[in-house]
Amino acid sequence: MTITAQQPLNGVDVTTLFATIEAVRQQPEAARFQFRTSSEWVSGVHSRGRFPGFFGAGQEHVHAGETVIDADHPAVLVGTDQGPTPAELLLNALASCLMAGLGNIASARGVELHGVRCKVEGDIDLRGILGIDPAVRNGFDDIRVTFAVDGDADAEKLESLVRQSQDRSAVFDVLTRGTTVTVNVARD
Amino acid sequence: MTITAQQPLNGVDVTTLFATIEAVRQQPEAARFQFRTSSEWVSGVHSRGRFPGFFGAGQEHVHAGETVIDADHPAVLVGTDQGPTPAELLLNALASCLMAGLGNIASARGVELHGVRCKVEGDIDLRGILGIDPAVRNGFDDIRVTFAVDGDADAEKLESLVRQSQDRSAVFDVLTRGTTVTVNVARD
Repeated sequence: MTITAQQPLNGVDVTTLFATIEAVRQQPEAARFQFRTSSEWVSGVHSRGRFPGFFGAGQEHVHAGETVIDADHPAVLVGTDQGPTPAELLLNALASCLMAGLGNIASARGVELHGVRCKVEGDIDLRGILGIDPAVRNGFDDIRVTFAVDGDADAEKLESLVRQSQDRSAVFDVLTRGTTVTVNVARD
Repeated sequence: MTITAQQPLNGVDVTTLFATIEAVRQQPEAARFQFRTSSEWVSGVHSRGRFPGFFGAGQEHVHAGETVIDADHPAVLVGTDQGPTPAELLLNALASCLMAGLGNIASARGVELHGVRCKVEGDIDLRGILGIDPAVRNGFDDIRVTFAVDGDADAEKLESLVRQSQDRSAVFDVLTRGTTVTVNVARD
């Protein structure tokens, strides 16, 4: 594979992106990543999340800046509304993952983006988490994402970028297929 | 069911919590919620998420404050590290959901909490999303959550609160069982 140096497109350094993919192909160990978060309880259902760093490409990393995300329930759910609900944060993770994929894929395919927006909505019947009806699941029944993409390509091509992003999305994959989650409680 | 007024515990208004559950039991329509997020592409794989409000208990709601979450990839993944990765945001949604459940459940059971922390780590092989190996899934292979709970109860009781939170968590449910996600592209 010959890699020709390209100008960054859409803010993506396509040359480095392709070189990174090629490097991982040669050295699969570099693909093993571990992402992490930490959360501390504040009060009631209000908690505060942070991102202490991650492992990948054979070493530990920390983020350039600190991000703090407060989560809470709104008043109608007996919270104090100090932040979005965990359910909304889940939808946001999905949106940002599809957006990131779209940014990379458009750039790799030489499509200049002018603007992209997406909306996500998820339906949930709270009788599940409230323990009212054991036949009702706890989580979302259905999640719908709608993209509006403005870029230098026809509608069909722009849609194909979104499809490819979906096909390569880590969060979409977990939300649609599920994964193994183990919850442990440390004892002193 | 007789509801006896109780003092708020752990910042949870337990009387209102029980009254809310009872109200939903009587009027199941009130349990239908729709949560939402919106995201706009900034540059490269950097996007910005917001929370425009939600529907529930028969009406539209907006949050008391505005939350903006920037997501990006780190330099090692050819991003500009303007925020956590979507994968980390997914883990954060899980942590905050389990925390919220724990806050409510501890309070409902009369256990005073002094402090709770949790860490989440998720293993992912990026050969999936990089399109290097079709046998490798895009998402996390395995997610592990570890809680440290300090409260007025023995270790077994505190652990049972975490278990009950897991059993009633919307995000845990979606991450372990998956759900339906539809991605559409609007055409002008």
